[in-house]
Amino acid sequence: MTRQDTAFVYGHLDVQLLKKEDGWNTEPFVLDFERRKALWRRGALVMMKRPVLGLASAIESISANQEKCAVNIKFCFEGMEESGSQGLEPLLRERQASFFSDVDFVCISDNYWLSTTKPCLTYGLRGLCYFCIEIECASKDLHSGLFGGSVHEAMTDLIYIMGQLVEPNGKILIPHIYKDVEPLGDTEEQFYEKIDFDTEDFRTAIDHPKLTKADKTQVLMSRWRYPSLSLHGIEGAFSGPGGKTVIPGKVVGKFSIRIVPNQTPQCVEKYVLDYLNELWKARNSPNKFKAYLLDSGKSWRTNPEHPNYVAAARATKYVYNVEPDLTREGGSIPITLTFEEVTGKNVLLLPMGASDDGAHSQNEKIDVRNYIEGTKLLAAYLYEISKVTQAELEEAESTK
Amino acid sequence: MTRQDTAFVYGHLDVQLLKKEDGWNTEPFVLDFERRKALWRRGALVMMKRPVLGLASAIESISANQEKCAVNIKFCFEGMEESGSQGLEPLLRERQASFFSDVDFVCISDNYWLSTTKPCLTYGLRGLCYFCIEIECASKDLHSGLFGGSVHEAMTDLIYIMGQLVEPNGKILIPHIYKDVEPLGDTEEQFYEKIDFDTEDFRTAIDHPKLTKADKTQVLMSRWRYPSLSLHGIEGAFSGPGGKTVIPGKVVGKFSIRIVPNQTPQCVEKYVLDYLNELWKARNSPNKFKAYLLDSGKSWRTNPEHPNYVAAARATKYVYNVEPDLTREGGSIPITLTFEEVTGKNVLLLPMGASDDGAHSQNEKIDVRNYIEGTKLLAAYLYEISKVTQAELEEAESTK
Repeated sequence: MTRQDTAFVYGHLDVQLLKKEDGWNTEPFVLDFERRKALWRRGALVMMKRPVLGLASAIESISANQEKCAVNIKFCFEGMEESGSQGLEPLLRERQASFFSDVDFVCISDNYWLSTTKPCLTYGLRGLCYFCIEIECASKDLHSGLFGGSVHEAMTDLIYIMGQLVEPNGKILIPHIYKDVEPLGDTEEQFYEKIDFDTEDFRTAIDHPKLTKADKTQVLMSRWRYPSLSLHGIEGAFSGPGGKTVIPGKVVGKFSIRIVPNQTPQCVEKYVLDYLNELWKARNSPNKFKAYLLDSGKSWRTNPEHPNYVAAARATKYVYNVEPDLTREGGSIPITLTFEEVTGKNVLLLPMGASDDGAHSQNEKIDVRNYIEGTKLLAAYLYEISKVTQAELEEAESTK
Repeated sequence: MTRQDTAFVYGHLDVQLLKKEDGWNTEPFVLDFERRKALWRRGALVMMKRPVLGLASAIESISANQEKCAVNIKFCFEGMEESGSQGLEPLLRERQASFFSDVDFVCISDNYWLSTTKPCLTYGLRGLCYFCIEIECASKDLHSGLFGGSVHEAMTDLIYIMGQLVEPNGKILIPHIYKDVEPLGDTEEQFYEKIDFDTEDFRTAIDHPKLTKADKTQVLMSRWRYPSLSLHGIEGAFSGPGGKTVIPGKVVGKFSIRIVPNQTPQCVEKYVLDYLNELWKARNSPNKFKAYLLDSGKSWRTNPEHPNYVAAARATKYVYNVEPDLTREGGSIPITLTFEEVTGKNVLLLPMGASDDGAHSQNEKIDVRNYIEGTKLLAAYLYEISKVTQAELEEAESTK
């Protein structure tokens, strides 16, 4: 008897809490099959719950057919993902030489199709560097009647600094920031051209007046393979409705940069902090200033021609009768990098839901089609990886 | 029997609610005589309550001495001041020809001394124009991973616009904004030089590193007789602690300008909106933009040589044995203008508390000295105005 391959599957069971009053059309935790043939429900089926349930159903159906599962399955289902997966990473690293030692393939289903109709396999994620700019002009909030005109206001300084970071079209103004971005390959654009993605659907779904890029390839590249900078907000300033005549004593501006291969958080941190400190010095303000990296995560990209992906593509073809698109994500799933590191194996991101499922949002749903076919897809994937030969795996490793 | 003069006194009885957990050293609604010989307590004695109680005590002591009060007293004590005095102004205007028809002097005690030790009479207030800048890039908040790089972000636009309003030193960048400001009188600066005010106390009380102006006269003028612009905050952006990778769909920037004689809200509104609209046009952003005046109030200044002020100065000299400073305030007390209009008479702002009482703030207090002497001051003021002759009043009116 040859050694049977082992697949590792990760899922999480917790959700971000939302109440009906937050804008749901139905009770978030009560299943509703009626609307658009979708399962509208938070927690039980949506988010990672659907892949977890899907996997259970897949195994159940294999058993029901009195068949032996073609691979061993190990899994990690956590309940703290929406709370920062506290404690998970040390646990995984601790089990590297034991629990994870015999894992051959890793599969995570925590993302979504690029479109509403076509399946995809995801081989890349952007990383993140999240920055704070703290400026303090007083030890407490001041009244603008009493102090307006006589103090150097922290908000004036902060708005100035935050205004020097990015151009209207999204170009980042921080020196050297594009230096480490992987140059565009000769045939890379052709790769994006084939992908099923409608920029007009993408734009109108959010009622955005005009994208920064003109065509599909440019839009996909701006989301996947180029860095972007977003200004998120200000802590400590007035943020309520109506008017309040406050001069905030201390404000913290928040912005982040989505980073891509081959940018590293260390280099991006240095470029950003050097620039911010230089701007501050030139500003010559008497106020207190501190800029720092709050959080960071590396970008991730794997080889989409690895047998793990080839097996998932075959399974997709079998279930959906279509070749899946090979996609990347503009966001981060930090646990992906951890699983890659602790197993040393290829990691597949295998999304189950469609792009309009509204993860974390009001009226989050999964379409019945995605749930049923997605369950079949997981079963077919487990079957396909069992057929991957040691030689194929070794070849993939050697060309890594 | 000659007609007895009628004094009108306004006070309010409500407070902004604060709990002990908000940072009070003692229970906010329990009197505490021990600390610094001050009455630390919110509601019962602080804010306008102390003048209201002071007036009651003054009248009580006059009665106890079996004396007849030298003037008639009318008053308006409201309980909605901290909620925008809803409904008060129409009521006052409705009673203009009845209740207010025989008022000769108006006294409001809703402000504070300029210093902690020296009494003052206040004859001017800055007005206010409060503006909102609404920018919308999407019908909902977006995830920076999914959309970062491909959309024109509303925050980028808003931070840019807010960055074009004021220089680090407080100079307002809006064209024409200084045009209507009353030119500095030949001897005006000498007037401020005599006032008891320590810029270093003012600065260190709030731990501000360096004021925008170098000397007392300049600081007082920047608070009283020149306009100032403050950036208050942004509604709709991320404002919590920690990090959130949101691209806000719609943001509303808030700023206000404290206006002075002879600026009018109408002119300031026009200058500001013209400038904002011009900036927006030049920005050439596809996003939705709307700038508007949220709220406004006129500045106010009266004649500090009016018999109403002369009487209050005499009363101050009698109680505190010092000539009061004649001061202005950088903030607004909108009801002042309403009482001036409905009575057609001179309005006196007669503060009872010291500059460090911490109105609306944690550990709000009134010193025992200010409360006791302030009560005497109100009694003495009522006596002094009873001695003002019709001829003095008529002369003041003629030189208005």
